[in-house]
Amino acid sequence: MFMRRAVLFLCLVHISPLIAQGPPREGPTRARDLGIPFDGTPGKLNAITDVAGVTVGHTTLIAGQGKLKVGAGPVRTGVTAILPRGLEKPEPVFAAWFSQNGNGEMTGTAWIDESGFLEGPIVLTNTSSVGTARDAVTKWWVARGIQKQPWILPVVAETYDGWLNDTDGFHVKEKHVVAALESAKAGPVAEGNVGGGTGMTCFEFAGGIGTSSRMVRGGPSVGVLVQANFGRRHQLQIAGVPVGREIPDATFRAREMGSIIIVIATDAPLLPHQLKRLARRATMGLARTGSVSGNSSGDLFLAFSTANPDASEKDRAVEVKMLPNDRLDPLFEGTVQAAEEAIINALVAAKTTVGRDDHRVIALPHQRVRDVLTKYHRLQK
Amino acid sequence: MFMRRAVLFLCLVHISPLIAQGPPREGPTRARDLGIPFDGTPGKLNAITDVAGVTVGHTTLIAGQGKLKVGAGPVRTGVTAILPRGLEKPEPVFAAWFSQNGNGEMTGTAWIDESGFLEGPIVLTNTSSVGTARDAVTKWWVARGIQKQPWILPVVAETYDGWLNDTDGFHVKEKHVVAALESAKAGPVAEGNVGGGTGMTCFEFAGGIGTSSRMVRGGPSVGVLVQANFGRRHQLQIAGVPVGREIPDATFRAREMGSIIIVIATDAPLLPHQLKRLARRATMGLARTGSVSGNSSGDLFLAFSTANPDASEKDRAVEVKMLPNDRLDPLFEGTVQAAEEAIINALVAAKTTVGRDDHRVIALPHQRVRDVLTKYHRLQK
Amino acid sequence: MFMRRAVLFLCLVHISPLIAQGPPREGPTRARDLGIPFDGTPGKLNAITDVAGVTVGHTTLIAGQGKLKVGAGPVRTGVTAILPRGLEKPEPVFAAWFSQNGNGEMTGTAWIDESGFLEGPIVLTNTSSVGTARDAVTKWWVARGIQKQPWILPVVAETYDGWLNDTDGFHVKEKHVVAALESAKAGPVAEGNVGGGTGMTCFEFAGGIGTSSRMVRGGPSVGVLVQANFGRRHQLQIAGVPVGREIPDATFRAREMGSIIIVIATDAPLLPHQLKRLARRATMGLARTGSVSGNSSGDLFLAFSTANPDASEKDRAVEVKMLPNDRLDPLFEGTVQAAEEAIINALVAAKTTVGRDDHRVIALPHQRVRDVLTKYHRLQK
Amino acid sequence: MFMRRAVLFLCLVHISPLIAQGPPREGPTRARDLGIPFDGTPGKLNAITDVAGVTVGHTTLIAGQGKLKVGAGPVRTGVTAILPRGLEKPEPVFAAWFSQNGNGEMTGTAWIDESGFLEGPIVLTNTSSVGTARDAVTKWWVARGIQKQPWILPVVAETYDGWLNDTDGFHVKEKHVVAALESAKAGPVAEGNVGGGTGMTCFEFAGGIGTSSRMVRGGPSVGVLVQANFGRRHQLQIAGVPVGREIPDATFRAREMGSIIIVIATDAPLLPHQLKRLARRATMGLARTGSVSGNSSGDLFLAFSTANPDASEKDRAVEVKMLPNDRLDPLFEGTVQAAEEAIINALVAAKTTVGRDDHRVIALPHQRVRDVLTKYHRLQK
Repeated sequence: MFMRRAVLFLCLVHISPLIAQGPPREGPTRARDLGIPFDGTPGKLNAITDVAGVTVGHTTLIAGQGKLKVGAGPVRTGVTAILPRGLEKPEPVFAAWFSQNGNGEMTGTAWIDESGFLEGPIVLTNTSSVGTARDAVTKWWVARGIQKQPWILPVVAETYDGWLNDTDGFHVKEKHVVAALESAKAGPVAEGNVGGGTGMTCFEFAGGIGTSSRMVRGGPSVGVLVQANFGRRHQLQIAGVPVGREIPDATFRAREMGSIIIVIATDAPLLPHQLKRLARRATMGLARTGSVSGNSSGDLFLAFSTANPDASEKDRAVEVKMLPNDRLDPLFEGTVQAAEEAIINALVAAKTTVGRDDHRVIALPHQRVRDVLTKYHRLQK
Repeated sequence: MFMRRAVLFLCLVHISPLIAQGPPREGPTRARDLGIPFDGTPGKLNAITDVAGVTVGHTTLIAGQGKLKVGAGPVRTGVTAILPRGLEKPEPVFAAWFSQNGNGEMTGTAWIDESGFLEGPIVLTNTSSVGTARDAVTKWWVARGIQKQPWILPVVAETYDGWLNDTDGFHVKEKHVVAALESAKAGPVAEGNVGGGTGMTCFEFAGGIGTSSRMVRGGPSVGVLVQANFGRRHQLQIAGVPVGREIPDATFRAREMGSIIIVIATDAPLLPHQLKRLARRATMGLARTGSVSGNSSGDLFLAFSTANPDASEKDRAVEVKMLPNDRLDPLFEGTVQAAEEAIINALVAAKTTVGRDDHRVIALPHQRVRDVLTKYHRLQK
Repeated sequence: MFMRRAVLFLCLVHISPLIAQGPPREGPTRARDLGIPFDGTPGKLNAITDVAGVTVGHTTLIAGQGKLKVGAGPVRTGVTAILPRGLEKPEPVFAAWFSQNGNGEMTGTAWIDESGFLEGPIVLTNTSSVGTARDAVTKWWVARGIQKQPWILPVVAETYDGWLNDTDGFHVKEKHVVAALESAKAGPVAEGNVGGGTGMTCFEFAGGIGTSSRMVRGGPSVGVLVQANFGRRHQLQIAGVPVGREIPDATFRAREMGSIIIVIATDAPLLPHQLKRLARRATMGLARTGSVSGNSSGDLFLAFSTANPDASEKDRAVEVKMLPNDRLDPLFEGTVQAAEEAIINALVAAKTTVGRDDHRVIALPHQRVRDVLTKYHRLQK
Repeated sequence: MFMRRAVLFLCLVHISPLIAQGPPREGPTRARDLGIPFDGTPGKLNAITDVAGVTVGHTTLIAGQGKLKVGAGPVRTGVTAILPRGLEKPEPVFAAWFSQNGNGEMTGTAWIDESGFLEGPIVLTNTSSVGTARDAVTKWWVARGIQKQPWILPVVAETYDGWLNDTDGFHVKEKHVVAALESAKAGPVAEGNVGGGTGMTCFEFAGGIGTSSRMVRGGPSVGVLVQANFGRRHQLQIAGVPVGREIPDATFRAREMGSIIIVIATDAPLLPHQLKRLARRATMGLARTGSVSGNSSGDLFLAFSTANPDASEKDRAVEVKMLPNDRLDPLFEGTVQAAEEAIINALVAAKTTVGRDDHRVIALPHQRVRDVLTKYHRLQK
């Protein structure tokens, strides 16, 4: 039912370029509400924004329908921006990244590796808009006068939305990137096919943005945001249950294609080499959903810590806090759990989408997932 | 029942040093025979030795009981040797390695990274015997006159067996290493608490050596051998089912401790940079068993290819075969699946072990696993 | 004398945007012609284009003078494009990269690391034009229909020309990138402040593009092209002689600032992991000129091999040639030597440049270099 | 003259095993005293021990002469131990490592990468004694009761002394390793063919241990110790002068063979990712002596910081000091300079050595070096 309506909505919208989001999906829109069991204790929002200071903004571009005409649409794409300390606090954060499979792009990583810092926002978009987004971030950053060096090395990552979007049409413009950056806010994060995730598919269901968080004993939290665009149907596991095999309908891939960007935020005081350890755990959350990180996948992960706001002082030695390695296990566990749940949240939230050449990607059917979980004795409550 | 008998056996044996193995465990000793479902098609032996040419040898050291007296025992340790092309063919193999969590040792990795070759055997033992094993391999290698360079850079990896073994007693001697090397053979591979895995525990059950393989469409195969010594009980998942929580008995860890070495063999013609991709997939098989790669874990993975026997020619350009990146997905899938199954095979095969200070580590109770799988609708047949 | 004339030239040019190059510098324009001694045997052109198939194109943008007005100029920038197999042969090349100091950007590196291939051109430009160049390459690539995957991961690298150029003015446009790509040709390569090197400085002299090559015993060649924009005067060593200290005039830096991109081409059949070894040798050539790879430096190196044209076959195992590791020393030596000479060639060729806010960067004074070399008994002939 | 006497000395000594050192070389034994110019300001000792707390101990093994009889000698080998905080303070130090060319062994690096800490001493010896040294460190460490984890992951590195030493004879025993550890002290460091460097050659001269240091503006210091065993004669550059070509006598290599271990100590408060930056600069000091890091070279570098003595606290978040990246350039410069000088110091101090099969490796002839420097206008004073 709701699928039909979503399609209808998409058909009606064809102002180009449009900054818009579809109506909320009916019923539960988060995995837990559906009765899917997850380990660990999420934060209040079960979102990356549970890590104090982190803000997220989306620009969603939906326009046109029918046959692909490069440059004219259909448009199913957008931009998601994550600001580690929000708009008001441009101080760099300690960061690290990891490539589980590098068939993708994340700009700015050489400097993250070298300096240990992420100096600005993280922007997620489609593959062919990385350049535009990089330029837009540069201009916006210069205009705000917050740069730490004379030059700027923006961090822009991507997944490929060519199945649904006129991706070679370059529909993301500078203003869309700025809109995502300027609209970034704390609080609940819109999920599914919104922002950079608008045209994404995941296990041959509609995919896109998902988020989750974990509260760790003793205070620190870890939050994850994914732009999920990977996987073949038969691989999908939810809470260890082979859901993909139980719902074989409406698949469209002859082979694996796609990627996932995973961003991990924590307020635990971790140094860059410790954040690299967190980034490497994203692989394990991804693995729990059934992925094997296919050859075509750009599985690129970035972790940052909002602790140590004064760490980027340039002129004198500074004191920074460090959590002992012996205290990291709960954060590792939290990262794995939140990465897994964020992916499932993306699936649960995403709406059936019809895009380029009338390619139709169905939403994860909620009731059938519940039925499968019941069959495997895994439905919560 | 069988547990009691195993204990009895251990009590009776206290010749030191003894090269011995316990009696076979009663009933099914492999995960599939127990009805645990796994994806993919294993090779004939469902072992790393399904990759033609690969041979494996174990030396198992079991002696003494009761209170730890450093140097006197109890001894629960050993050596496992993997020869990529067997004893008769000392030609190097293309290889690569990956550290998912580096709280461990694998010697010789700088040269693997640099040269793209593994030039000799892989030896697995306990942590404090790495030096002895390295020296032993050097001497054995020199004596055989097969070295490619004037110096030798042996590959020896370890996990820590201090819970069951007098690990600071240095009970592994040169002769034990040579025995493992010289006894390496094709065919079925002994699993559980044998060889380097003798004193190992996994998810607070008895652990150690496990193996599995996958046949890939079009011919190539991938085989995995693990020395598994990691995990806390509540983390254990078998075929996606939370088995660890359903069998909470006889745990003994206040926190995660331990490691896993994963060795991946393939006969697919992969170049070193492609083998690194395989090595990185071991993480995903490990994740499926519930691990989060704890801080104390030395999760070190090595992948090699038995193809291209002439690749190490020193004097002229050679032709080597390479599988296209676009054809790697089935090997990725096979690696993830075989790594997962090899770990579960280690658990299924390992016998209850009583070691140092009467520490008793129970075997995975087969019938209870079957009961749990039945409850979760996952028992095969 | 010639300096004055160069300034005059720049003053006269202020059409914006202009695609132009200054007149050739008077007298010898290459380091060897000046009598600077170098080891090894260069190829016929002593250029990266000595590696058969490699082509290079420049777009040079020079316009305006006087006070910086962001968006209006002065403009001293451009684009350099390297096509590993030329325009006609879009087949990927085996490649690898290395970051000696990551304060810079080279896009597309995650996929180079993962796949072992460089699939398209390498584009060098200024820092803030990386996005524009990435988009331009994407469009150009799609238009040519030569892509190997549905998405494109262009390789664009940069150094910062903000001392001479209105770098925040985004003067590099898509057409300039395409012009560099389309004009790429074999034969001699223009050096100094041309192409992506137009606004660059090196050891506080005018810098930019330089190139060199070495012929190795037995046939293979190695060619290097640099975009040099690093170093403080006192550090400069030429042929081991402390030239920088002997010519302390007209310095303008209070601290190290800048970067160097080094591209290494070879026709030797090297696999990706061997090309990484070549890339790491670029550091050693750089070190010989006196650099210590300062914190502000984006010292990013990329090596590729034009051998194995059929290596990127997607559907079946292919045969590829590999030079034994034992045969790499001459290529290591050639890389170090050619990288050193390419940097000195950039200095020798670059003209005095007056840019933004009348910043004036002098050319390396040829006769004084000869005098210094004579003093240190190092002048050739 | 002194060469003849050194030979005589070696002939007279053949007690086996002997812990001994030859008599001091006549005349100046350090590069600066010879008039070789170096940049920067060394510390009081111009040694790694200028970094407060660092101690160094050597065990030198010299015995036998004439024809090689494996196991019987001749013996020209030893052990060098570096204790980052000396014997009394076993607290771990922040550390990182880098492989410029991995044809060698440094154990324990996976845990350095992962944890950011070096937990014990660094031991340097010959290639085939790495296992013995690793075991010895383990036992010594356990006996002292200072371990941070139940297991120990010793750091032992090597270069190959098979040209002069009966290296397959395994003459280094546990007691020799312990002797080096227990004798480690502050103050001047013996250089040349002592300790782990006893049987080493460098640019086909006698080589071995060398050390140097730099004082950086504002207080911090950087000290370097090398075990130098690399290079062919024609490559040798001293202070930029082609000394190797000017002294072509008594060479013995048909091709490059050998390695260098470079250890960098600093009291500057650097985090692990910053220490990796220091480690990467060792390449540049090495390059200045003429090396191209040949295929056969194990060029492995390790950097540690003695600051932050409380960083390894296990139970609670700690405050650690960090120098800003913007303040690292002087340390980069100091590392490059001290690495270069340490190598030249090894050459200047090493005595002519006659070893296995009467292989004779001459000492760097001091007066001839002075003559060459004079010719090239580079002799100091």
